Amino acid sequence: MKYQSPSVGQEISCVMKLVSSKFLLEPRALKKILKQKLSEENFGILKITSHTFEPHGFTLFFLLSESHLAIHTYPEYNSIYFNFYSCRGPADAEPTFKFIKEKLKPKEILFLRKDKVPLINPQP
Amino acid sequence: MKYQSPSVGQEISCVMKLVSSKFLLEPRALKKILKQKLSEENFGILKITSHTFEPHGFTLFFLLSESHLAIHTYPEYNSIYFNFYSCRGPADAEPTFKFIKEKLKPKEILFLRKDKVPLINPQP
Repeated sequence: MKYQSPSVGQEISCVMKLVSSKFLLEPRALKKILKQKLSEENFGILKITSHTFEPHGFTLFFLLSESHLAIHTYPEYNSIYFNFYSCRGPADAEPTFKFIKEKLKPKEILFLRKDKVPLINPQP
Repeated sequence: MKYQSPSVGQEISCVMKLVSSKFLLEPRALKKILKQKLSEENFGILKITSHTFEPHGFTLFFLLSESHLAIHTYPEYNSIYFNFYSCRGPADAEPTFKFIKEKLKPKEILFLRKDKVPLINPQP
């Protein structure tokens, strides 16, 4: 049977604050553990793109068969932005989110509330 | 003066439904107009990654100095997922969002509500 995505996937998007700083400066360590975790969760990793910024911080992007995982780190705040969109099934992004939360140990997580940005929403 | 990102950027993340289908099948046209628009808005485009899926649909990712723009298209639903995160300033992602909305002419936009996914939020 051919797989068909649902029309809307699951997204988890947040800023994790006051995280363990050892993962924030360069992408290698985080890339390694996320690659393992995504494979364990049977996501198809098609491409990995990263960029390290001056003076610090990086972006890490996993292009998946099932959508994507994007990370930005902000060492100046000891924080990371985590954005996972998956169109494979419900609750699909949660094990990876939980995994990274356990590794990074944020003291606070701010979920980005989309209902606060409806200003150009064409629906009344 | 050295630029410093705010601790939390602006994110616009949504599914645009029933869009103009000419942009959905392959990334070239959308990549071209988005590249122009992002440059016009003075975003620094560091890398562009894309992947075209079988039997159709694609992912397009712009890695920016100011964070990222990710697009996934679902021709089977005539829809796209749009996710822009920018840590340059308030309302920073809006002109690009508005631009793509005008180009794709969605009949409906579903903003992904993050407050519906707090199940693993460590905050009470």
